[in-house]
Amino acid sequence: MAAAASRGLLVDVHTHVYLPRYVSFLRSRTAVPRVFSRSIPEGGTEERLLILDAEPSGGRPMGPQYYERDLKLKFMEKHGIDISIVSSANPWLDFLPATAAHQLANELNDDLETYCSTSANVRSSSLKQLYGFGLLPLVPEVTTTSLLETVRQISALPHLKGIIMGSRGLGKGLDDDALEPVWAALEKAGLVVFLHPHYGVDGKEWGDKENGHVLPLALGFPFETTIAVTRLILSGVLDRYPNLRMLLAHSGGALPQLSSRLASCIDHDPVVASRLKHDARFYLGKLYFDAVAYGSEELGFVSDVIGRADKFTQNGSSAGASAGAGVEQRRLGSRRMMFGTDHPFFPPLKETDKWKSVLENLEAIEGVYGWSEEDKAGVRGGNALALFGLQNA
Amino acid sequence: MAAAASRGLLVDVHTHVYLPRYVSFLRSRTAVPRVFSRSIPEGGTEERLLILDAEPSGGRPMGPQYYERDLKLKFMEKHGIDISIVSSANPWLDFLPATAAHQLANELNDDLETYCSTSANVRSSSLKQLYGFGLLPLVPEVTTTSLLETVRQISALPHLKGIIMGSRGLGKGLDDDALEPVWAALEKAGLVVFLHPHYGVDGKEWGDKENGHVLPLALGFPFETTIAVTRLILSGVLDRYPNLRMLLAHSGGALPQLSSRLASCIDHDPVVASRLKHDARFYLGKLYFDAVAYGSEELGFVSDVIGRADKFTQNGSSAGASAGAGVEQRRLGSRRMMFGTDHPFFPPLKETDKWKSVLENLEAIEGVYGWSEEDKAGVRGGNALALFGLQNA
Repeated sequence: MAAAASRGLLVDVHTHVYLPRYVSFLRSRTAVPRVFSRSIPEGGTEERLLILDAEPSGGRPMGPQYYERDLKLKFMEKHGIDISIVSSANPWLDFLPATAAHQLANELNDDLETYCSTSANVRSSSLKQLYGFGLLPLVPEVTTTSLLETVRQISALPHLKGIIMGSRGLGKGLDDDALEPVWAALEKAGLVVFLHPHYGVDGKEWGDKENGHVLPLALGFPFETTIAVTRLILSGVLDRYPNLRMLLAHSGGALPQLSSRLASCIDHDPVVASRLKHDARFYLGKLYFDAVAYGSEELGFVSDVIGRADKFTQNGSSAGASAGAGVEQRRLGSRRMMFGTDHPFFPPLKETDKWKSVLENLEAIEGVYGWSEEDKAGVRGGNALALFGLQNA
Repeated sequence: MAAAASRGLLVDVHTHVYLPRYVSFLRSRTAVPRVFSRSIPEGGTEERLLILDAEPSGGRPMGPQYYERDLKLKFMEKHGIDISIVSSANPWLDFLPATAAHQLANELNDDLETYCSTSANVRSSSLKQLYGFGLLPLVPEVTTTSLLETVRQISALPHLKGIIMGSRGLGKGLDDDALEPVWAALEKAGLVVFLHPHYGVDGKEWGDKENGHVLPLALGFPFETTIAVTRLILSGVLDRYPNLRMLLAHSGGALPQLSSRLASCIDHDPVVASRLKHDARFYLGKLYFDAVAYGSEELGFVSDVIGRADKFTQNGSSAGASAGAGVEQRRLGSRRMMFGTDHPFFPPLKETDKWKSVLENLEAIEGVYGWSEEDKAGVRGGNALALFGLQNA
């Protein structure tokens, strides 16, 4: 595929599926997470998806757009999305015993490979419309052997380009030493780790008022991602595996805005001040960020903090290293950012032709101050093609 | 004082004191929060301040810089700070029964008035070096009468220009209907509400690894502020009290970066979609933000989201309203931002002439792309003089 054509592709890196095998399994369950039917006021029944113990509003309606591939493809067509890198949606396998998690991970990875490999080619290229993030059986008591075997399985499936990962690891978070061989294997395999939240933070923070899903989704999700990646940074994982490729959901949550505060807190705390190789802000330049933040200023800012990262090599950089941020730094940072939709979540409340949530994210990219047309094309698709090795497929 | 001279002043809006009366009280306590002495390896004893039940590292050393006014003034002189708007440090009165909280609030407000009123004048003007934020007895079971009486007390103390407030309110957060008369009284009195965190989020999020105070300080604090002000927005307080003047600690935590996501989540949730008068992003333009974020990109971004706010009047603004953010919008937003140090916290780990944390915040202001010299002077002092009504004092 010629460079000129590939620049024009729209690639969605944040788009989920509940594969039919997974939905069947959730329908068979009586504990959360589960799918259940209930009657609705208009008559008939609806299926609802309940994925958290204390979920507000009795979960959410689950329609066929959650699992039917045709509806994913129609959604893509309607919004001009050429390629989707599809990931299973939360809570993945977190709730399963180790043996069941291993088996279901392997089955779902095979299912997702088929889901992708049987999709059509894009614009008479060798690229497919669908690629995927696989699943590892990341649950307590899983063996390292099981995890590494699944990494190998995913590596051997040609349309799976990475894995999606929650924040719990083996139950103790992503700063758990037991994950070291997994990071090593993922780095070596060149698989992209898509870090995605599920649990938020403790629900008592949200208070007594009825606010629907707003607080856990708008704040809890990004907080969880921020905590997970911060703990990862503090544990030195990004020092030990500098070629690990990690993509952060929702533009990294709150990490960009808190990254200089994080650096300062590390610098002023005797327990950690000398632990890391670099100032905390350096590591943001090693990460990738989806562009799912719904605003131009947010995207521009995320590209600022990516673009400044190389000023912060080595621990103890001068306080002034952050000064003088300009458009060049912002343009540089855009190369690690990529469009996403969060489909099938955030459907419009009223029937519309295109989804507002998608338009918001596209218009946000279009409106970033300082990004050139080339930068914007990169965020819409070119950067993802590069990250996932799809240029010459 | 002439405008030209006032532009040159450096004003610290985020600087704390544990007043001597409060320290004595903490020394007398055996439960958290408390101050206790312990022996140190070098011989002798040190005082330590323990303010949270599960605080890492056995709290922190508490030296005279926490309570002695002379050391505050020396710190100001060393860093060229002309005026400090001093606030009591957390956890304020949160842990007290209502009657004790009322009495101590009133005593500490009088103490702080004396602390400020007896300070020297600045550069032969009528301005003092010290002004203050008072305390309200915000605890469960306090009466509205007690709260309003204390608002009146503070209003009558000429050097107290606002109040500092945590996130708990009367125990149920700041979206509690019982606070309505307090917001009304604060708005009417023109007192600035300095919203400041203390509790962070549930400590189990931080995992098992030893990371000192980094996670609760770098992430927990800003998360708490973000949750508090988001709940305040969702409850409609800023619709009902549009002239309430609220200053957010630590540049609003993560609120700026999550504000478009918040707007989108509200817009897509049937429970809250029609509740507020405006898009969530509008309210950020009604708030004030300290410039305690340690990085130029962060400060520039915060000014972006303040500056764009007026595009989001009325609910249901178009998805493209965020597009095209540029330097003018950023300059406009700077007017609601103001320098702070967080003194006496974040002292340098090694003896230095000036504090790194202060230099970082000053250099961050200096380095913001797009801010003019006038904008920077505003953030350093002019904006605070305007907010606290100190221009013609």
